[in-house]
Amino acid sequence: MKTTYNRVTPEIVASLRQIVGQDGVLTTPEALEPYSHDETVGLSAPPEVAVRVTSAQQVAQVLRLAQRQRVPVTPRGAGYGLSGGAVPLHGGIVLSMERMTNILEIDRENLMVTVEPGVITGELHRAVEAEGLFYPPDPASLDSCTIGGNVAEGAGGPRAIKYGTTRDYVCGLEAVLPSGQIINCGGKLVKNVTGYSLVQLLIGSEGTLAVVTKIILRLLPLPKVQVDLLVPFDHFQAAANTVSDIIGHRILPTTIEFMEQDSILAVERLLKKDLPYATAAAQLLIQLDGNTQAAVEADMELVGDICLEHGAHDVLVAKDRPTRDRLWEARRMIIDALNHESPVNHMEDVVVPRAVIHHLLKGIKEIALDHDVRIVNFGHAGDGNVHVNVLKDELADEDWAALVPVITEEIYRLALSLGGTITGEHGIGATRRRYLPMALDGAQIELMRRLRDLFDPNQVLNPGKIFP
Amino acid sequence: MKTTYNRVTPEIVASLRQIVGQDGVLTTPEALEPYSHDETVGLSAPPEVAVRVTSAQQVAQVLRLAQRQRVPVTPRGAGYGLSGGAVPLHGGIVLSMERMTNILEIDRENLMVTVEPGVITGELHRAVEAEGLFYPPDPASLDSCTIGGNVAEGAGGPRAIKYGTTRDYVCGLEAVLPSGQIINCGGKLVKNVTGYSLVQLLIGSEGTLAVVTKIILRLLPLPKVQVDLLVPFDHFQAAANTVSDIIGHRILPTTIEFMEQDSILAVERLLKKDLPYATAAAQLLIQLDGNTQAAVEADMELVGDICLEHGAHDVLVAKDRPTRDRLWEARRMIIDALNHESPVNHMEDVVVPRAVIHHLLKGIKEIALDHDVRIVNFGHAGDGNVHVNVLKDELADEDWAALVPVITEEIYRLALSLGGTITGEHGIGATRRRYLPMALDGAQIELMRRLRDLFDPNQVLNPGKIFP
Repeated sequence: MKTTYNRVTPEIVASLRQIVGQDGVLTTPEALEPYSHDETVGLSAPPEVAVRVTSAQQVAQVLRLAQRQRVPVTPRGAGYGLSGGAVPLHGGIVLSMERMTNILEIDRENLMVTVEPGVITGELHRAVEAEGLFYPPDPASLDSCTIGGNVAEGAGGPRAIKYGTTRDYVCGLEAVLPSGQIINCGGKLVKNVTGYSLVQLLIGSEGTLAVVTKIILRLLPLPKVQVDLLVPFDHFQAAANTVSDIIGHRILPTTIEFMEQDSILAVERLLKKDLPYATAAAQLLIQLDGNTQAAVEADMELVGDICLEHGAHDVLVAKDRPTRDRLWEARRMIIDALNHESPVNHMEDVVVPRAVIHHLLKGIKEIALDHDVRIVNFGHAGDGNVHVNVLKDELADEDWAALVPVITEEIYRLALSLGGTITGEHGIGATRRRYLPMALDGAQIELMRRLRDLFDPNQVLNPGKIFP
Repeated sequence: MKTTYNRVTPEIVASLRQIVGQDGVLTTPEALEPYSHDETVGLSAPPEVAVRVTSAQQVAQVLRLAQRQRVPVTPRGAGYGLSGGAVPLHGGIVLSMERMTNILEIDRENLMVTVEPGVITGELHRAVEAEGLFYPPDPASLDSCTIGGNVAEGAGGPRAIKYGTTRDYVCGLEAVLPSGQIINCGGKLVKNVTGYSLVQLLIGSEGTLAVVTKIILRLLPLPKVQVDLLVPFDHFQAAANTVSDIIGHRILPTTIEFMEQDSILAVERLLKKDLPYATAAAQLLIQLDGNTQAAVEADMELVGDICLEHGAHDVLVAKDRPTRDRLWEARRMIIDALNHESPVNHMEDVVVPRAVIHHLLKGIKEIALDHDVRIVNFGHAGDGNVHVNVLKDELADEDWAALVPVITEEIYRLALSLGGTITGEHGIGATRRRYLPMALDGAQIELMRRLRDLFDPNQVLNPGKIFP
């Protein structure tokens, strides 16, 4: 079924101005340029108009207008997604949440925070940490991305191994259905089995089922002690064995990140300085937390011993903020460094059961050799979630264009053969939708499509996403 | 829309015998009696036939047969639910999972366990704990209820305050749709954003959307140290303030259960022996866990001090299993004791934001006074989840029948006015469906109803549940 949409007319723009005010509506090509892409390399499509809303009521009015006029609406947080979820493939209206940036309440007694969707994730971190509270999900783009985008994508991050992903913290949502109806699901409740969980259905639905306008998140007490370890290995296999062994010793670290040597070298070239252990084939970046110095140090000693038993060259320990920042510097700069190495590149986000991650990395190396292309891996060893970066380097444009789909399919086939799937935290969005049938059987895709149609029979909300 | 169903004919019974074998099908009134109720007091309806399946394929065949014949199917775990979810209100087929009791795999490396739905929750606990692993959700009926039932109801338990509910542990499901299609959702993956989360949609759907036939659960390392505290107070308000203060000190206990004096006295009368602190108005039962003795004892000291500051008479500490069992004895026997006091009684399961639980309890006391009826409360203070037990005692049958809906509505109105909802962990099922419109707006109920119809247009699967 092919849906056709109408263009945004001057009358529609006038109506939008009535809804959100004159300065909430952008129409010039220059003003619209930032709304034509997210962080997905090589994907861009301009909207016809961008609307910056400030309330659920405005969202409802915009959606009702769009339904009447059959104009597509693409909701947008900060545009830091990595699968094109916020890119308006069919033009129409971009519905930007950038002005809904209020932290409405930090409820210390209930360990809950209520926020508008445009709040920057890192700002939320700082606001609750100032109160001794903790919101664990920490996607890499946390200083730029928004909570609303995190909910839409089901965002993860390094701390997921111990603390889970965005999904595990959302207790309540106010959302506007494609029809313009405003619903309130859940609340400041950690237990709730009153009907189907629309909260959980909306999380990770990539802006295709509803527009989230208010979010209630549960918080934890902020751990009092934290320590970080940087551990270099000669082989990734040894690092992978170390991860299994740490968990086998009943320690669940806050993070177990890994970086292959190529990613460290790329950061060295970008920063023009030496980084620790750049000669090691792989590094683990392990964070431990807890409430007493003694308990965290006991875990640290044990983890350090396990690393050394598995052949780690060394264990670099950071107990204070400056040292910690130095340890994390390389990890945080990898994407920038790879973009610097090869401005055209392609990033995948496959996930496998934790224990087979070394099979995944070995297979990816074979794929790189087969196609004579550079592939650099880093990511979340504790979660089996690998960010696979294929670099164009000096390849001709047409060869690159032909190579990407081939290599993508090979990587997906490999991950799926290991019991994994095609995206752990970046989403299907625009870039992976053609591959969805590799990951899910036809019955499931059909069921999901009918779910979408139930919410949005006219496919006005974020069309061109998820479904092949 | 009123759906009409056909009766189970001898031909249908013969077909069922072909699917599951002769001894898998029960038809006599005596054999069917246990399948006519769950643990919901006063609710019973016999099925026409009970079918004990052993595989997803058998489930699929039964569902296809039922669809063709327009016969209702009620899936059933062990029948320990408290909202009538497993009661076959429209007769037809009870689909019992009691023979699907295999723990298929304990995957130590990935911290995952794969089970059939008929596995008893407590048996799963013991099996994984023997390996140093931990499956936290612990509904009170854990020695009788099944994991499949826990998934269907989104079951919680005392440890939810620290560890969450069943929902937080399910990573993958094999399920049979009402059409008879078998789908596999998720996997041994802690991160997965490949399409809408059907896993999360099915959890808590009370057997109305699909029949779950295999479950992949994530596990944690088993904490090495545990300590339990029993703490008596003169007023519940003091106990409630203690809970807030403990959490304010950044300690998240494994459990914070509370029991009102009436519940302790009822257990004393049942057991015909003295229990600790039976003269106290309220008791808290606090469990702490961790990986080192020192860390847990540090928390224990702090929690003990906080309790005493808030006027606790005493803090009874259990560090070993026998003492712990003695502390928990009263808590575990409350439901039996109340049934013993008044075989006819009515239990609610309201939940409010944790910090206002004392307002809820105060309001419930007023309701009890207004109606001159005994109401005994216990439950999960850390979650704001209160099990409210209205006792019939010597009330005349007709007065009781008239009173229950009135008092139920008053309790719900109170919980909702405090930002809570009508069920935290027992589900809507048959008993609460008429009250669903108090908790959810019409748009949400309509959306949920259409979701159900999308999965099951003929309403063959567990009709008469959830929807008013």
